[in-house]
Amino acid sequence: MNPKHELSPALRALMARAEHALDSILPPDDMSPVELHRAMRYAALGGGKRLRPLLTYATGHALGYDGPELDAPACAVELIHAYSLVHDDLPAMDDDAMRRGRPTCHIVFGEAMAILAGDALQALAFEILARGNRERGMAMLSTLGHACGAEGMAGGQALDLSATGCLLTLHELEHMHACKTGALIRASVRLGALTIHADAPTLDALDRYAAAVGLAFQVRDDILDVEGSTTVIGKTAGKDAAAGKPTFPSIIGLDPSRARLDELTDAALDAIAPLGERGEWLGELAHYAAHRIR
Amino acid sequence: MNPKHELSPALRALMARAEHALDSILPPDDMSPVELHRAMRYAALGGGKRLRPLLTYATGHALGYDGPELDAPACAVELIHAYSLVHDDLPAMDDDAMRRGRPTCHIVFGEAMAILAGDALQALAFEILARGNRERGMAMLSTLGHACGAEGMAGGQALDLSATGCLLTLHELEHMHACKTGALIRASVRLGALTIHADAPTLDALDRYAAAVGLAFQVRDDILDVEGSTTVIGKTAGKDAAAGKPTFPSIIGLDPSRARLDELTDAALDAIAPLGERGEWLGELAHYAAHRIR
Repeated sequence: MNPKHELSPALRALMARAEHALDSILPPDDMSPVELHRAMRYAALGGGKRLRPLLTYATGHALGYDGPELDAPACAVELIHAYSLVHDDLPAMDDDAMRRGRPTCHIVFGEAMAILAGDALQALAFEILARGNRERGMAMLSTLGHACGAEGMAGGQALDLSATGCLLTLHELEHMHACKTGALIRASVRLGALTIHADAPTLDALDRYAAAVGLAFQVRDDILDVEGSTTVIGKTAGKDAAAGKPTFPSIIGLDPSRARLDELTDAALDAIAPLGERGEWLGELAHYAAHRIR
Repeated sequence: MNPKHELSPALRALMARAEHALDSILPPDDMSPVELHRAMRYAALGGGKRLRPLLTYATGHALGYDGPELDAPACAVELIHAYSLVHDDLPAMDDDAMRRGRPTCHIVFGEAMAILAGDALQALAFEILARGNRERGMAMLSTLGHACGAEGMAGGQALDLSATGCLLTLHELEHMHACKTGALIRASVRLGALTIHADAPTLDALDRYAAAVGLAFQVRDDILDVEGSTTVIGKTAGKDAAAGKPTFPSIIGLDPSRARLDELTDAALDAIAPLGERGEWLGELAHYAAHRIR
């Protein structure tokens, strides 16, 4: 069996599929405005775990569909993720110079272009999802809009800003992460399920899975910030603690954080148990979110 | 008759309608995340010419519809406009401390929160357009996505960044503005027309109108930057020239800029002539774009 911190060949093939789909969807960098297109491609291509598009593809697979209709939602969630990283890394936000082992977008293209590249990546995510005529297209767009707005990702970032240097309760910390990273991870699964016209009970079960995976991903992130090395994780280690950001280890300790991670993984696996063998990729992603080493 | 630089009571009533619709759509500022919601509301409410929602409403009116289905697209284009101003004013971009006669969003809420407020306003624009089940909803969302992305507004901003300190031809300047402000103004009209299921010839005529109005608006902006006073226009006058930004007066001179403005206004009015009297609000907005004093 595959070690849990690595992805199986099947999921690595899906990473390549996501990379290829993103490459086709992003505007070419020899077309005007060249510098903006270059910054967008730099931010979205050539790195990253691709967890969100993998969740979209794996959800489609679990419901019996692996076809091309999954590419637009898979790219949409990854474009949103990519834009959020560009804006997060800005000097006024986290001020990070390294991401995925490379200089961050504003280091390479300047702050103004990085702000615009993030803005344009967000617009592109909605635009590609609106192309064509999906039966549940409006529900998908509404899901994505809600997931990245003030009640989702952007709201979570705002809570994170206000939380720096504050003592949060575990509940407050989990709420912040449910918005900041959880909302988009849940949307990644939901968009996959809506592509296949899943029924309400299936959507609910998948949402329980996604909420648990999203939180597990973040707990693992906090543990890696304590345990990992900058070289392996591809961004600056120890940064959260240095910045006075509340984390799971800082609030409940390292061992209880590990225990919480196991609980969340179990909850995710329980939620998709009714899907049987078809849910194997989702299962693998739940393990990966909890055991990844970068 | 109304002076051309002021709006008639009918259009001022529509401004109030837009303000009210935005107020209902924006998240309340007593709900978490409070600071983000406050920043979003500060950026989107309490000022501005509301040209874009007025164009959406006036287009609906010209096609025989004034009903509530116009509110979501009218708010969507204004939210996109509001977000673009917040990001434009950032220190890394135009570094402007005044907007609409008030301190800019990042001056009041800090840079990080202003970046997030802009991001969340963009997401909200798409989300409200995706709510409900409009017959041509996907076309509307695709129109909006294209208008604000790399081939529209964000792309125009990127061209603007690269153009500072450069000598542009008139053609290059017009292309930049066609992206930077023109794309969203055209979308404002098109979204109104799609709400009413306009046919292709009507969409084309309205698009010619909107392209002319969009450019006229920008020519007027450049003239005001030369002629206006900071107090009246509500932002820093003379700023473009001081920043070395190419403008219509700097490239073709002030009088030829005024002549171009008249040409564009005529083109806009010609395009909507077949609509007859129902097009009166659109006509008024074309005059207003060209004659406004702030």
